[in-house]
Amino acid sequence: MSKNHDERIRLPALRKKVTSAEVAAQWISDGMTIGMSGFTRAGDAKVVPLALAERARKEKLKITLMTGASLGNDVDKTLTEAGALARRMPFQSDPVLRAAINRGEVMFIDQHLSETVELLRTGQIAPIDIAIIEAVAITESGAIVPTTSIGNSASFAILADKVIVEINLAQPLILEGLHDIHIPKHRPRREPIPLMSPSDRIGTFAIEIPPEKIVAIVVTEKADSASNILPPDDETAAIAGHLVEFFKAEISAGRLTNSLMPLQAGIGTIANAVMAGFLDSPFEHLTMYSEVLQDSTFDLFDAGKLDFASGSSITLSPEKNKQVLRDIAKYKERLILRPQEMSNHPELIRRLGIIALNTALEADIYGNVNSTHVMGTDMMNGIGGSGDFARNAYLSIFATKSTAKNGKISSIVPMVAHVDHTEHDVDILVTEVGLADLRGLAPRERAQVIVNNCVAEPYRKRLLNYIEGANKRGGHTPHMLETALSWHINYRKTGSMLLHEIPQYEPELELS
Amino acid sequence: MSKNHDERIRLPALRKKVTSAEVAAQWISDGMTIGMSGFTRAGDAKVVPLALAERARKEKLKITLMTGASLGNDVDKTLTEAGALARRMPFQSDPVLRAAINRGEVMFIDQHLSETVELLRTGQIAPIDIAIIEAVAITESGAIVPTTSIGNSASFAILADKVIVEINLAQPLILEGLHDIHIPKHRPRREPIPLMSPSDRIGTFAIEIPPEKIVAIVVTEKADSASNILPPDDETAAIAGHLVEFFKAEISAGRLTNSLMPLQAGIGTIANAVMAGFLDSPFEHLTMYSEVLQDSTFDLFDAGKLDFASGSSITLSPEKNKQVLRDIAKYKERLILRPQEMSNHPELIRRLGIIALNTALEADIYGNVNSTHVMGTDMMNGIGGSGDFARNAYLSIFATKSTAKNGKISSIVPMVAHVDHTEHDVDILVTEVGLADLRGLAPRERAQVIVNNCVAEPYRKRLLNYIEGANKRGGHTPHMLETALSWHINYRKTGSMLLHEIPQYEPELELS
Repeated sequence: MSKNHDERIRLPALRKKVTSAEVAAQWISDGMTIGMSGFTRAGDAKVVPLALAERARKEKLKITLMTGASLGNDVDKTLTEAGALARRMPFQSDPVLRAAINRGEVMFIDQHLSETVELLRTGQIAPIDIAIIEAVAITESGAIVPTTSIGNSASFAILADKVIVEINLAQPLILEGLHDIHIPKHRPRREPIPLMSPSDRIGTFAIEIPPEKIVAIVVTEKADSASNILPPDDETAAIAGHLVEFFKAEISAGRLTNSLMPLQAGIGTIANAVMAGFLDSPFEHLTMYSEVLQDSTFDLFDAGKLDFASGSSITLSPEKNKQVLRDIAKYKERLILRPQEMSNHPELIRRLGIIALNTALEADIYGNVNSTHVMGTDMMNGIGGSGDFARNAYLSIFATKSTAKNGKISSIVPMVAHVDHTEHDVDILVTEVGLADLRGLAPRERAQVIVNNCVAEPYRKRLLNYIEGANKRGGHTPHMLETALSWHINYRKTGSMLLHEIPQYEPELELS
Repeated sequence: MSKNHDERIRLPALRKKVTSAEVAAQWISDGMTIGMSGFTRAGDAKVVPLALAERARKEKLKITLMTGASLGNDVDKTLTEAGALARRMPFQSDPVLRAAINRGEVMFIDQHLSETVELLRTGQIAPIDIAIIEAVAITESGAIVPTTSIGNSASFAILADKVIVEINLAQPLILEGLHDIHIPKHRPRREPIPLMSPSDRIGTFAIEIPPEKIVAIVVTEKADSASNILPPDDETAAIAGHLVEFFKAEISAGRLTNSLMPLQAGIGTIANAVMAGFLDSPFEHLTMYSEVLQDSTFDLFDAGKLDFASGSSITLSPEKNKQVLRDIAKYKERLILRPQEMSNHPELIRRLGIIALNTALEADIYGNVNSTHVMGTDMMNGIGGSGDFARNAYLSIFATKSTAKNGKISSIVPMVAHVDHTEHDVDILVTEVGLADLRGLAPRERAQVIVNNCVAEPYRKRLLNYIEGANKRGGHTPHMLETALSWHINYRKTGSMLLHEIPQYEPELELS
């Protein structure tokens, strides 16, 4: 790699820091807090963590691991299997780690993605000992140029005592210039963030740290893991269709223009499919101010629908990835990657007037949303950025298919068994059945609109029965508490919510 | 009032608009949306709404009523009794209205206090037909000078077709100059809010509207309703004591200085008592960036502890009110009242690094907070600004007494029956028993800290039993769903949570 050496490590003094993953991993010791690059499987540190896992198989070595969001390359899986993870934050999506979290073996702290570095900066969570950051290059001044994601990498590197850099030759140098690193000042002397449009550049191209903090550099050639989302299907197409119709009506009512407002789309199949649905819409000159940029972002660029996209990472399917990297020069002027603190910042989301589209695991008849916990107890991935966006957006949309597990689970239930987003923060709920516009409605009205518009039979009649019984009991948000979670309880007992019979309404004591 | 006439209505052309409340109320017709001044019983429109209620007793007249927050002078009660309220938002605290909401007779939309005018500005809720705003004066240019609150008055007046002004002679002219009216631009051309300290002035002294929109002026002399909070007691003193000790430890750890960060304190007895507890603390040069300024604010000024307070209203006990109005000149340089959109703005709360102190109705073992719904169904007051602050604060604290109803209700339960604030947004939970520091903890850890630190016997043992059973079931957030709401169910059936027996753990199907 001698040629790449000069091109990729431009500060000569740092070239002597090049070493193996195994040697680099020796900087890490038991009990440390490690901050790694990686956001939605993109731009993750790929070889030092695996060398660390090797060590953990042989010696007592447990760390607290912070990242941007989810990792690829089986890093979370391998570290979990090696018993190397004591604590993990703020997001993950690995089945093996997930199981360990749900067994109570790994302490997982499920955080709003904009908040982790704010807590670190103020010393409210344990400080980072070592940051491990994937880079396309280190500049002449020792600054780190990230790859396909920024996530929390910039603040991790700035706040860590020591930094290990993974120079990834599989990440092309043309990625340099894509990034915009802006770090807010410490409070109480913080200034407004000077960003007024998704395309505004407000920071630097690389992460500036004192070069002497870089203690090891490892050269890799491993690719990012590909996106594992599914292609659009009939149901996701129906969801997209309902949303396109909704936006057309908003435009007709004069509330939106044909370019809508900057769009955020959560990671995953449904959000990607909805964005793909905009390909056949009348909307144009769209912009995105989002977290992860998926296949649909580039399809919308190619279709001439999208003017600009700001995110914190790029995560693509294998085919799309090849095409985008080949044509990256053409997209580069219309793309910015930012730290997740900026992509998800409440100040910016509110100022820009984002239309936020996130996926619900389940929602209830009042519009409370569970994004994370299967049957109320078992963590799926984490809240991610959905709370950053839903709480501060111009319009907060949650989408889900109306049922799961071949109809054995209704995604709309009397009461969600875990709440990540309260009814205050859910404006629109949409399933393949239809769309519920909840703006300006009281809970009893929300229940009628949600059940009539979003729920498939055979669950609709059951929910209407529940509402009828609950309304007889009274209250601003009527419930029959002894029945409210019975759908989940029945699912756990029988493997289906469908066996559930709605009990008759029973009189009860008045509240004193 | 001829002399006051000139002094209070300085634009001569408007003086001919002076009329009676009854005549002014004739501008309102059935089905209209009315925006009224009033925030935490301060600065509310006082006579036109009552004249409107009189009309509603005799004719079909139902309105949508928006305010800043709660009203005084029995306005909500009288309008409810007259059947004049079809819809009400975003907050209320009147027992008669509350009962009508819980019967499903008045549709109540419980909103984050920073959001109502944002929804109005974008046409996402029904537009304001008429605004009724209490004022100390109308300026030479026809601008409206608010009284003891701003709330949503400025945007209501700007967005309404017509404006009725209540000039209140009981509100002294010296209030003029206290206010700072800043209204954000329409998106997508919105700029950063240029506020970097609680004492920054960024707007105008009065609400500037075209004077021809003012269709009627009514002169009143009715005082604001006094604060109805209770004085500190042993339990609130204990809560304050725990928080003072916590902050002292944060200062020792180097995370805070002796002047802390700008403080927000929710309305009510507990928050006021905690602020009063700072009188005997070592903290100094404190600042407040809050909603309502209560007795404790002025006690802290008098004690030399507080340098500056920004709020949206001033609501005081009768004695304190007399003293503050007498000495207002002395306080005026250290006070600003702002629109609630600014006092509660996510951008400013995050930038300033607010320490947010709000009251929980109940919390659960994982730190989810219910602020609003008695036994999960019956609305108390509304979420108010607690969500604006908790979500975006530097530190989010929730306080509650550990029990209610003479011990028959535990304020800490296995699962809250309604969620207003998720565990993501609750850093500190404090009761008279003690304080739980939840920062950086996973749910299973949060449960141990909350139960051990915040719960009084006889509920502690019961919660530990619940945790033990739930942990055997597994999950990131362990629960026994069939038991999770049983404390509330038992309370509704028997009038006490204490009769509850913890069921034995029963094996159940694994999640597929």
